[in-house]
Amino acid sequence: MEKIEKARGSVYCGIDVWKLLNEHISALSPSKIIILTDSNTQKHCLPILLKHINTPIAISSISIPAGEEHKTIATCNYVWEELSNKGADRKSVLINLGGGVVTDLGGFVACTYKRGIEFINIPTSLLAMVDASVGGKNGVDLGHVKNQIGIIKNPYSVYVSVAFLETLPSAHLISGYAEMLKHGLIASETYWQAIKAIDFQNAKTTEEFIWTSIEIKNKVVTEDPTELGIRKTLNYGHTLGHAIESYCLDKSDKQTLLHGEAVAIGLILANYISFHLVNFPKKKLETTTSTILSYFPKQSFSEKDIENIIELLKYDKKNVDGNVNFVLLRDFNNYVIDQKVSNDLIYSAFEYYKNFKN
Amino acid sequence: MEKIEKARGSVYCGIDVWKLLNEHISALSPSKIIILTDSNTQKHCLPILLKHINTPIAISSISIPAGEEHKTIATCNYVWEELSNKGADRKSVLINLGGGVVTDLGGFVACTYKRGIEFINIPTSLLAMVDASVGGKNGVDLGHVKNQIGIIKNPYSVYVSVAFLETLPSAHLISGYAEMLKHGLIASETYWQAIKAIDFQNAKTTEEFIWTSIEIKNKVVTEDPTELGIRKTLNYGHTLGHAIESYCLDKSDKQTLLHGEAVAIGLILANYISFHLVNFPKKKLETTTSTILSYFPKQSFSEKDIENIIELLKYDKKNVDGNVNFVLLRDFNNYVIDQKVSNDLIYSAFEYYKNFKN
Repeated sequence: MEKIEKARGSVYCGIDVWKLLNEHISALSPSKIIILTDSNTQKHCLPILLKHINTPIAISSISIPAGEEHKTIATCNYVWEELSNKGADRKSVLINLGGGVVTDLGGFVACTYKRGIEFINIPTSLLAMVDASVGGKNGVDLGHVKNQIGIIKNPYSVYVSVAFLETLPSAHLISGYAEMLKHGLIASETYWQAIKAIDFQNAKTTEEFIWTSIEIKNKVVTEDPTELGIRKTLNYGHTLGHAIESYCLDKSDKQTLLHGEAVAIGLILANYISFHLVNFPKKKLETTTSTILSYFPKQSFSEKDIENIIELLKYDKKNVDGNVNFVLLRDFNNYVIDQKVSNDLIYSAFEYYKNFKN
Repeated sequence: MEKIEKARGSVYCGIDVWKLLNEHISALSPSKIIILTDSNTQKHCLPILLKHINTPIAISSISIPAGEEHKTIATCNYVWEELSNKGADRKSVLINLGGGVVTDLGGFVACTYKRGIEFINIPTSLLAMVDASVGGKNGVDLGHVKNQIGIIKNPYSVYVSVAFLETLPSAHLISGYAEMLKHGLIASETYWQAIKAIDFQNAKTTEEFIWTSIEIKNKVVTEDPTELGIRKTLNYGHTLGHAIESYCLDKSDKQTLLHGEAVAIGLILANYISFHLVNFPKKKLETTTSTILSYFPKQSFSEKDIENIIELLKYDKKNVDGNVNFVLLRDFNNYVIDQKVSNDLIYSAFEYYKNFKN
């Protein structure tokens, strides 16, 4: 059993998570338990969870449609109303069972229902395990702008079980992997080397790698809770990654990209920009690009696409006064924040991505 | 100048509020100032505020339709989108200029836009001055259930100027007065006696009375931030008051009641229930009923209306496990919490209200 214990937002991982979950539910003694799922986790994960929960407290569930396009206030409205219909009161607990959409949206709904009820996260996707399980960010998208509406509050606690990874389609597994690669880039070249040939069939090493990612993120978040410095590294590859994801979500003739698929592209672009502006080593730029492309097939972007993506940057939450701020890397584990990047350099980065031969 | 200073949520009242507001804006140094109004305060209050604000920072405004029926997530969505369209970033400040709907909704929007931007409240209704200026409650209604969605966070600070009361229709002035009467009941018979013949034409005494109400509420909130005991007294008259307000809002053949008009009825009912269950003095029951009815004309409720109002009680946020908890008074300034009240006694209280001869 691996654990990070805090007043709120403790994370537990390993074979004992179900025993602990039952102990914690018993200590919380909620009036009701409501489990939030999406249409996938309702089918594939809810039966696993129900098999493990052992409590006399009444349990019911609410299911939302799967997919980032449903991470909206309209879906929150549905969940708020369902909570109300089910008679959820201030002592009820919401368990968010799903990927990042369910944990982000469910956390936001819980924080705002009757001015806040207790909630627990059980991430079922690799992405949610390594990314959403630490940091307390909750929220939903507004139109094409990701996570525009939300608040920061840790769940009561988080339980990570790799058993759920078996329920994931492989594209979704790989999507979470992009964040693990990011953790390697921002925090540890050794970790990057270890995970670059990860074998997801091996549950034991996968669990160890997931835990390392959680520890990296936790260290960063704990060191810089208000996001003044090192925490900005978690946004590495995300400035352009988010814009690419939003753009593809919004554009009917573009294939929708999973978060990790967009971030993978964002990482390559950020590495290239880092190489140009702050001397990220050329050799490492090439080997990392090669590794990323071996997992994430290349997408094509027209001149017009890139123009629109750059336009979207100005909606980035991290921006102040219309300036787009990038976090860049001088090397693995060596960051520099608040870098201004010209549109020309962004075009060049897309050009590099397009022309790279693996 | 009267003031309550805290880390967050300081309240200022008196002739110097504009000077202080300008100093505070200068200290905050926001990237943009956005003023939220409703259609009434846009017309009557925004020009007054703009006359007093003196800053080089860009100011723009967003207006929502006036009225409790617009205190919804749909209206939040509009404001979030307008903030986004106006390029509001994390360093922008939202000034909520209006009654309780504007301050409650604007506070919620600010707390959740980009996971939270700074906000300032300038209450323009008597109700918002005496009730919404302290306590940090923000939120909106969900369907017919009041304040079902929200969070608790204090504004940066609150500026109270009686100048705005001149812009209020008299029904709205009287609506806020119900909360002042409640403050008298829960905290001070002397205050009740002083305000029972209030003269709103006299700005000086009105300002003093408003300040006493703010101090009473602040004392209660400060003593019991997590609402375990004395803070529940602020809900006096509101358990039934809210249900009456929700019911009348929802029912097309019922006249919509202002918050204070519903609370005034709730106070009479709560006094009657207090008389029956915890010996609130009979004489005081009668004199207080008489005073309240002299300001708030009697409304009529059928048997069916009362049945529906009782049905709505189960949505009250304060309830746990389906039990409706009332706060009651043994006398002025002598409360008892978590009282179970039978439906029969609620019917009797409506009967008393109906038959009372002034």
